[in-house]
Parts: sequence; C-alpha cells; structure tokens
Amino acid sequence: MTAPIRLIGLDPGLRQTGWGVIEVSGSALTHLANGTVTSAGAEALSDRLMRLHDGLVSVIAEWQPALAAVEETFVNKNPTSTLKLGQARGVALLVPALAGLPVAEYAPNHVKKAVVGSGHAEKSQIHAMVRMLLPGVAIAGADAADALAVAICHAYHLPSPARVAAGGAL
Amino acid sequence: MTAPIRLIGLDPGLRQTGWGVIEVSGSALTHLANGTVTSAGAEALSDRLMRLHDGLVSVIAEWQPALAAVEETFVNKNPTSTLKLGQARGVALLVPALAGLPVAEYAPNHVKKAVVGSGHAEKSQIHAMVRMLLPGVAIAGADAADALAVAICHAYHLPSPARVAAGGAL
Repeated sequence: MTAPIRLIGLDPGLRQTGWGVIEVSGSALTHLANGTVTSAGAEALSDRLMRLHDGLVSVIAEWQPALAAVEETFVNKNPTSTLKLGQARGVALLVPALAGLPVAEYAPNHVKKAVVGSGHAEKSQIHAMVRMLLPGVAIAGADAADALAVAICHAYHLPSPARVAAGGAL
Repeated sequence: MTAPIRLIGLDPGLRQTGWGVIEVSGSALTHLANGTVTSAGAEALSDRLMRLHDGLVSVIAEWQPALAAVEETFVNKNPTSTLKLGQARGVALLVPALAGLPVAEYAPNHVKKAVVGSGHAEKSQIHAMVRMLLPGVAIAGADAADALAVAICHAYHLPSPARVAAGGAL
C-alpha cells in the first residue's frame, strides 16, 4: 500500500485566491480542507499581495501539502485585469515554491477535461463533479471549488512511481 | 540637519528586475548601489519567481533601505507578456512589503516627468539624467537605470516631514 500524498490546489485572484487540500491514496481521493484567502480592494497593492502571501503561508503551514498545483490564468482581454491577476498569481506560485513544494501548472480547459471529461464544461458542472469526487465536502465558494478541481487534476496526473516517491517524502 | 533616507527603486521584469539604492539628505542625492536580479527562461515559472524573490531579499538585507518605489508596469498589448510582467511585479511589490518597507508606485511617464521634466522623454534621456543626478554612478544596465530613475522620482516626492520621520526611523 502506498502512503497518501497531500496536494494543494490554488486558484489565484487578487481579491480572492481559492485553495483546496486533498489526499491521494492509490486511486482514492480524500478532501481535507478548502477556503479562500482574501484581500480588500481599499488597501495598497503591496499590502494586498502581502495578505495573500501571509494567508497562503498559514494554509501551507497548517496542512503541510507535499505538492502544489496552480490554475493557469485566463489571459483576459482587459490588460489591467490581466496585470492584477498576474500579480496575485506571482504570489500564489511563489509561496509554495518557497515552502519547498514542486509547483505544477494546469490550463483551465485541462482542469475541466481532467475533472469533468470535457475541456468546455460549465463552472457548475465542475463544481458538481468536485462534490461527487470528494463526498461530504463543504465548499467555501467558487474559487475554493476551482482550487479543489486543480488539486484533483494534479492527483490524476501523478504517475504511480511519483506517487510512491512523494508519498515516501511525506 | 535631517538624517539621510535610503530608498530602493525597482523596475520589475520576469527575465530581469532592475534595482537601485540611493540616499537622500535634504536635497542631495547619493548613489549607493544598483544592479539586476535575473531568472533564466528555461526554469519553471515558480522557480523563476523564487529567484527574483531571493535576489531582492538579499539586496534589501544588504542595503537596508527604509522606503521602496516600484515602477508601474506598462500594460502591454500582448496579454501573455502582461501576465508575465504581472507575476514578476507581484514579487517585486511583495518582497519590500514583507521587509516592512512602505511601497510606493509610479507610472512610467510620472518617473520621466520627475527625472527629465517631460512625460514623453526617451529612455536614453532618462539614463543620461540619472548619470547627471548621481555623479560617478556605474550603471549595471537599462533596467538598473530605470530602477534608479524610480528611486530618484520617489526622493523628489518625499515631503519634508516624511523625510524627517523616515530618517528618524533609520
């Protein structure tokens, strides 16, 4: 029997970054926790980024995942929104890397395909599927659901030897 | 006589982030150091952001600035470039904030106006002016020159009471 591997999925956003932690044991998935880290729009940008940083540092310290996966940001038509998202995404990629976690990235349609089976699935289908794959889960919101979907996607992409190796490192 | 205040200016970029440290004493500017922190394109994005982070942490630890100023990113027409810049910029804003420094932001044309007197100045004019304002400076490259220009811009915007307060806190 392989030791369980703990994964964190992240769905970055400046106002709200979703996170979800699951455990993979063979082909079984278990939900551990999910939530969102928020930053108020009224604060200076550097302070908002620091809030996201501090929030994610706490989550990683509490849940001790071995691997991280971050959703690739949709490149928005509005360049100002893209820049904002980029800044939050920089922090979401940095924090697990600083904690020593390998960080994978998945495009949104890749996540959809892994979780629902179609790259063009609706948000609601993804969230329903996340609930089905993680029975009894209480989801903190849309961003947390997306983060759990990224974590599930990463779990499906772990090759067996990698599972053993990462499991052994836990 | 007011105590000198040390400022760091940052010009963020994923491949290369420029930095420059100057000291302001009354109306006199002194150059202390400048350089660039680089990340290789072949590495994973999370590793590149970690390199920028680690490099900037070292610079701040070595030079102990009291205030930071970051150039606002030109919102590029290419959304992929904008996203990359955003990610680097997130790290450039985060690192001084985590070190407890107040972080100011200036738009590029604001920096040009402060340093050269015109918001539409050419890059070469800015670099020439930086050399004139910081006699004897050896500049590590275009990004470092831009970073020094941001630091100079911030120095010009410090009100006298803030100078006293920040100087007192050094």
